[in-house]
Amino acid sequence: MSNARVSPFAPSAFPALAPIAGVRVATAAVGVHYRGRPDVMMAALDPGTSVAGVFTTSRTSAAPVAWCRRILGGGGARGLVVNAGNANVFTGRDGAVAVAATAEAGAHALGCAPHEVFVASTGVIGVKLPYERVTGALPDMARDLAPGRWREAAEAIRTTDTYAKGAGAVADIAGAPVVISGICKGSGMIAPDMATMHAYLFTDAQLPAAVLQPLLATANATSFNCITVDSDTSTSDTVLLFSTGHGPEHVPIAAHTDRRLADFKAKLGAVMTDLAHQIVRDGEGASKFIAIHVGGAASRRAARKIGLSIANSPLVKTAIGGSDPNWGRIIAAIGKAGENADRDRIRICFGDTIVATDGGPADHDEPALIAYMRGTEVAIAIDVGVGRGRATVWTCDLTKGYIDINTGYRS
Amino acid sequence: MSNARVSPFAPSAFPALAPIAGVRVATAAVGVHYRGRPDVMMAALDPGTSVAGVFTTSRTSAAPVAWCRRILGGGGARGLVVNAGNANVFTGRDGAVAVAATAEAGAHALGCAPHEVFVASTGVIGVKLPYERVTGALPDMARDLAPGRWREAAEAIRTTDTYAKGAGAVADIAGAPVVISGICKGSGMIAPDMATMHAYLFTDAQLPAAVLQPLLATANATSFNCITVDSDTSTSDTVLLFSTGHGPEHVPIAAHTDRRLADFKAKLGAVMTDLAHQIVRDGEGASKFIAIHVGGAASRRAARKIGLSIANSPLVKTAIGGSDPNWGRIIAAIGKAGENADRDRIRICFGDTIVATDGGPADHDEPALIAYMRGTEVAIAIDVGVGRGRATVWTCDLTKGYIDINTGYRS
Repeated sequence: MSNARVSPFAPSAFPALAPIAGVRVATAAVGVHYRGRPDVMMAALDPGTSVAGVFTTSRTSAAPVAWCRRILGGGGARGLVVNAGNANVFTGRDGAVAVAATAEAGAHALGCAPHEVFVASTGVIGVKLPYERVTGALPDMARDLAPGRWREAAEAIRTTDTYAKGAGAVADIAGAPVVISGICKGSGMIAPDMATMHAYLFTDAQLPAAVLQPLLATANATSFNCITVDSDTSTSDTVLLFSTGHGPEHVPIAAHTDRRLADFKAKLGAVMTDLAHQIVRDGEGASKFIAIHVGGAASRRAARKIGLSIANSPLVKTAIGGSDPNWGRIIAAIGKAGENADRDRIRICFGDTIVATDGGPADHDEPALIAYMRGTEVAIAIDVGVGRGRATVWTCDLTKGYIDINTGYRS
Repeated sequence: MSNARVSPFAPSAFPALAPIAGVRVATAAVGVHYRGRPDVMMAALDPGTSVAGVFTTSRTSAAPVAWCRRILGGGGARGLVVNAGNANVFTGRDGAVAVAATAEAGAHALGCAPHEVFVASTGVIGVKLPYERVTGALPDMARDLAPGRWREAAEAIRTTDTYAKGAGAVADIAGAPVVISGICKGSGMIAPDMATMHAYLFTDAQLPAAVLQPLLATANATSFNCITVDSDTSTSDTVLLFSTGHGPEHVPIAAHTDRRLADFKAKLGAVMTDLAHQIVRDGEGASKFIAIHVGGAASRRAARKIGLSIANSPLVKTAIGGSDPNWGRIIAAIGKAGENADRDRIRICFGDTIVATDGGPADHDEPALIAYMRGTEVAIAIDVGVGRGRATVWTCDLTKGYIDINTGYRS
C-alpha cells in the first residue's frame, strides 16, 4: 500500500450511520497482505434477507465475482465475507477453491448454507490468496458480531483508499421509516462499466430480490457507473444491496414500479451517489473534484459517453490539475467520443463562466475564471447542441501523486 | 511550448532522406504562436501529382481537415501548406475563412487552383488563426522552394515534439527504383482512430489516386493506427501521401492489387511504421518504448482493441515506468477491452520471460526479469487463447514528465 498523504477531500470523521436491524458486523486483522490493520470484514444477515447485485463487465473478472453472480439467483443472503490486499483474480483453479472454502467456512460460522454467503476480494491481482488466514478467523469473528460497526467494516476493506467511506439515509415507504446504510472502497482502477467498485448497502426494508435488483441497477446507472478516476475498469467491481426486512413493518411491496418506493429510490440513489463521490474524492493523487454536466446530446447514453470521454482524457485532467481552463482539450475529448455533436453549437462553461459558445471562444472575465479554477471543486457544463440527452459524470484531476502511487503499488 | 528535455529516444541526427523528383519545399518563421523558429512549411508539387489521405475520426475535427477531405476527391495536388502553433480548431466561420484564404494564397504563389492546395494546422485549439501571417509569407516562400529540405520541413511542423521526425525508403516497382520520403509530427494527444497524426509522405512513383488511397489506408491500419501516447484522439490527425510520377519510368499500375506493388507496399508500410514509432518515442514524458504483441484473439480487430486497451491503461503505463512487471494490471486491461479472452488460457511474456500462463502465475527468473524491465525498450507478448487474430500496438510509459508538460502547455 502506498504511503501517499491522505486525500485533501477526506471527511473530518466517518459519518454517523444507523445500525440496520438484522445486520451484524465483525472485522479482523489476518495479514493476507497488509500488516497491523484489519483486512477482513464479515457481515451476518438475519434469515429472510433478500439481495441484489451488480458486477464488473470485465472479461477477466475475479473468482469471487463469478461466485456472487452464481448465487445471486437464489435471491437470499445470510452472510458476506470481504478481504482486502489480495483480489483473488487470475488465480485459476486456486481462486475458485479459495472462494468455495471461504463460503463454506462462513456458512459454518454463521449457521447457514454456503450458497447464502457472498464473498468479495480486493487488492493485488495474480497472487494466490492465502485463504486459510481468512477462513481460520471466521469462527472468532462470528462470536464477535455486533450491529452498527460500519466504520470498522469500511476500514477493513480499504486498499489504496486514504479514508474509510460510508453514507446512509432514512427513507419513507408508505409511512414507515426504513434505514439505508452503505460502505464502499475504491481509489484507483476506477472506471465502472455497467457495474462498479466494491460497495455494500444494507436496508432494514422488506423488499424481495425481484424488487431490489431493478432498484439497484437504476441507482447504479447514475451513481457508480458515472464516475471514473483513471479509465481502468476493475476485475472485481461489486455492489451488493441487502434488504433484511427487520425494520419497521411496512406495506408489502411486490413491484419495483410501486409508487410508494419513490422516496426509497431517491434515498438509495442519494446514498450511492454520495459513496461514488467519496471514491472520486479519494482518487489516487486527486487534488480536485470535477463534475461534468453534459446536455444537448442525442440520448442519455450519448451524454454519458461524452462525459466519460472528457473525464478520462489525460489532457483535460492534467490541465485542470494545473488550474488551466483549457477548453480546447474538452473540444477534442468531445470529438473523440464518437457521439453526435454540432461543432458549431457547442457551449462550454467552467462554473458560471461561459468560455466557448456557438463553435468559438466567448469573451469572459479571465481573472475570475482563474480564481475559480484554483479552487478544489470544478464544475464543467457542456451543451453539444444536437438533442435533449443529459448526464453527469464525476472524476478527479491527474497529478504526479497518481504516478507516485502507481509506480510503486505492487512492490 | 514546453521546455521539457529532449526525449531519450531522440535520434543522434535527422535521417538522410532522398529528395523526391517533383517536390520542392520551403519554410518560414512567421510567429503564429512560437517566436524565433520556423513555423510554416510549404511543399510545391509538380503537375500530375496524385494524392491519398486519411484523417481523424473526431466529431470536432479541424477546419483544415474539412478542407482536405473536400478536395481529396479531385485526386490531384499541387501544393501543401502546414503551420504549427495553432490548430485552427473550434474557430467557427473564422476557421473556414482562414483555410480558404491560405489555399487561395498558396494557389496564387504556386500557379495552380485553390482546390489543389492541401492545408493543415497543428497546435493550440480554440484560438483564431492569424492566417495573414501565413498567407503573407507564401510569395517569398514560393521563390525559395528547393528539393530535399526534409529536415527543415519536419522542424517547421513541430509542436511539443522534442525532435524532428523523418523516414524514407527505396522501393522496386517492376524493376524501377522509386523513392519514398516522409515526415511527421506528434508527441501528445496521440490516439489515432482510423486515421493518425500529421504525416506527409512523398514518392516519385507514378500511381493514380485510386491506387494510392487503398495503399495508404492499408499501411495506416498497422502503423499510425496502432500507436497511442495518451488515448486522446486529436482533432487534426492528417496523413497525406503524394505521388509525383517524376521518378524513373515504370510500368503503369492501374490497381492497388497489382502484384508488382508488393515491394512498394512493404516499403511504404516500413516508412509509416518507422514514423509512427518516432512519435511514440517522442511521447510526452516518455522514458520507455513499449511494443505490445497480442495473439490468440478472435480477430485482428479484437487483437488491436485489446492491445490499445493495455496501451492506454494508466496503471499499466505507470507500472512499466517504474520497471514493474505488474502483469495483474495487464489482465485487468485485457478484461476491460470487451473482446473475447479465455481467462484460463491467457499467457503473458515480458521479453522472453513468461510471467503468466494458463490462467495463473508462471515460475520465472525474477532478477533477470527486473533487469529486462529496467531497459528503455519493453516488449510484451500476450496470447488471449480464443482465436488466431494478431496485432501489434506501440506506446510509451506514463511519467511525471507527461504531467509537467501538460499542466502548463497552454500558458
